[in-house]
Amino acid sequence: MERKGNFSIFEVPGNFPLERGGSLPGIKIAFHTFGTLNEKKDNCIWVCHALTANSDVDDWWPHTVVKGGFLDPHKYFVVCANIIGSCYGSTGPLSVNPDSGEPWFDNFPKLTIRDMVKAHILLADHLKLNSIFSLIGSSVGGFQAIEWAVMQPQRFKSLVLIATAPYASPWTIAIDETQRMAIFSDKSYGEKRSDAAQDGLAAARAIGLLTYRGASGYNLTQQDHPAHDDSVPHTHRACSYQRHQGDKLIKRFDAYSYIAILDAFDTHNVGRGRGGIKNALKNINIPVLTVGITTDIIFTPPEMKELSEMLPDSVYKEIESDFGHDGFLVEHTLLNYLINNFFSSINP
Amino acid sequence: MERKGNFSIFEVPGNFPLERGGSLPGIKIAFHTFGTLNEKKDNCIWVCHALTANSDVDDWWPHTVVKGGFLDPHKYFVVCANIIGSCYGSTGPLSVNPDSGEPWFDNFPKLTIRDMVKAHILLADHLKLNSIFSLIGSSVGGFQAIEWAVMQPQRFKSLVLIATAPYASPWTIAIDETQRMAIFSDKSYGEKRSDAAQDGLAAARAIGLLTYRGASGYNLTQQDHPAHDDSVPHTHRACSYQRHQGDKLIKRFDAYSYIAILDAFDTHNVGRGRGGIKNALKNINIPVLTVGITTDIIFTPPEMKELSEMLPDSVYKEIESDFGHDGFLVEHTLLNYLINNFFSSINP
Repeated sequence: MERKGNFSIFEVPGNFPLERGGSLPGIKIAFHTFGTLNEKKDNCIWVCHALTANSDVDDWWPHTVVKGGFLDPHKYFVVCANIIGSCYGSTGPLSVNPDSGEPWFDNFPKLTIRDMVKAHILLADHLKLNSIFSLIGSSVGGFQAIEWAVMQPQRFKSLVLIATAPYASPWTIAIDETQRMAIFSDKSYGEKRSDAAQDGLAAARAIGLLTYRGASGYNLTQQDHPAHDDSVPHTHRACSYQRHQGDKLIKRFDAYSYIAILDAFDTHNVGRGRGGIKNALKNINIPVLTVGITTDIIFTPPEMKELSEMLPDSVYKEIESDFGHDGFLVEHTLLNYLINNFFSSINP
Repeated sequence: MERKGNFSIFEVPGNFPLERGGSLPGIKIAFHTFGTLNEKKDNCIWVCHALTANSDVDDWWPHTVVKGGFLDPHKYFVVCANIIGSCYGSTGPLSVNPDSGEPWFDNFPKLTIRDMVKAHILLADHLKLNSIFSLIGSSVGGFQAIEWAVMQPQRFKSLVLIATAPYASPWTIAIDETQRMAIFSDKSYGEKRSDAAQDGLAAARAIGLLTYRGASGYNLTQQDHPAHDDSVPHTHRACSYQRHQGDKLIKRFDAYSYIAILDAFDTHNVGRGRGGIKNALKNINIPVLTVGITTDIIFTPPEMKELSEMLPDSVYKEIESDFGHDGFLVEHTLLNYLINNFFSSINP
């Protein structure tokens, strides 16, 4: 596949202070851009990515960075940066700790969502993007987007929040904790190598997938052939699917980065130190499009509606999909339509 | 707590043949009874239990084996038998393999749901229970109940199916496979001791719990105190809850029995060798009460309704609950009401 974007790494000199104390020495932020920044520097759309994704939004969000898509590179200057804690070019647990000369592995400092956002603020400053047309985040990408919009509402002309939340709910934290339990049950976690705890990581990925797809997603796509002999265990299509998805992830991710990111997600609460969630959300005095997915079992439609109602200027839309939370990746046609309409209402 | 039931073990002489070939030598079936069998021997209610439960239905299904409950021991002779493959008295992976003189552990023969039901048929025959007033199964207990009702509809006067299905759907199989992945990622699985793979088993239990409770269940019961500092990872109430539930299970269950039972559940398909599910369900020509739970993400209300519609003589009822699949345990007041009403319509 032709790679459309430009990949760069921004190196931040000096110490990067962390919310929970301590600092990271000289972080790197990997990012992609698509299209061209106009003279007025006001055609930028910034995309925040989810858990195991990377800065190449054209790769993980297909049919959006295309002519007519909401990330049309002929119209917009699209930026997506890899979150710190990840393993796609930004500083993370596999980066070398200058003090030891070895990768951090499980000694990587604990990050919060606010640390991740502050790193991206440094990049936006560096790129002189002071009037961003829209900030977009789905899932835990939305955690960053909503946090950033609370910190700097004046930086953005609009905000798009898809299948996400203003805080990590007990339910989402329980999902993360369960994945940690699976990873830690693999006793090779803690060994100083990038491929430690791969079986645990595969199981964690399989847990994640359950929550991404839900009943309707699996029952739509993983039915066995009618002639399959159900009396033979482990031969069901759904079994192979879970194992295959686990195997795929361990080829491109590592357990240490996975844990670092899960831990950071659990810290998400836009209300912390700001008089609670409702109060914090009042800061976001820009037009917001809030999108729920009918079958999403992680960020359920009632919760998405509630989020929309707490925002001063938000319109709530719901996508009909059988694919659960993964609907945000699968239903690109509906999303292109909804988000383009929303953009037209801002820049008619 | 006062123990109300009588606990016995029924020993079946000779080989017990298995659906997938081979046999188990001389199985044991542990069971509880509550109340007294009347002279006509027609006041029995047989309860099938779910995954990690046991034959003491009064213990795991509180407020049902009480005066006025649908399992009223003053009125009914209630029987609940431990499934084979389990570790509560019936033959399972921790039983001694007479050929080796050692427990079976991971060499226990592969069971199917039909094997489990056939074992209980031997017990029902032994107890001369040929006209059972009602057969009740929730969750994977419902797998057994529906299978048994297809095999021997004439044995039962009625059937109650709560939050269950006529086959293991791709979704439920994916949940089971993910739990297996978590257990197998604990490398001590396979060691010849009953406490092998306990960390993996705890993670598997945590996965199960996610699916039992869902978003509404966790968000209702596991919110952090408003003063909790969300920036400190691993301190959330939902984290402790997941770990605590894992710890609780490993004190009372073992990884080998857990795997044996999960594997058997995946074989559930009442249509196998019977011309498909619809055709098999036509056999159940007795009154059925089918109960769905509004927030159940494992056996969703649309699937429960579909099951009810495939049965020749079923009434479908839905329980409003925030507790997801666990609603079948929590909402005993609603269940007592619904099931007692159903029983009155059969024996007015």
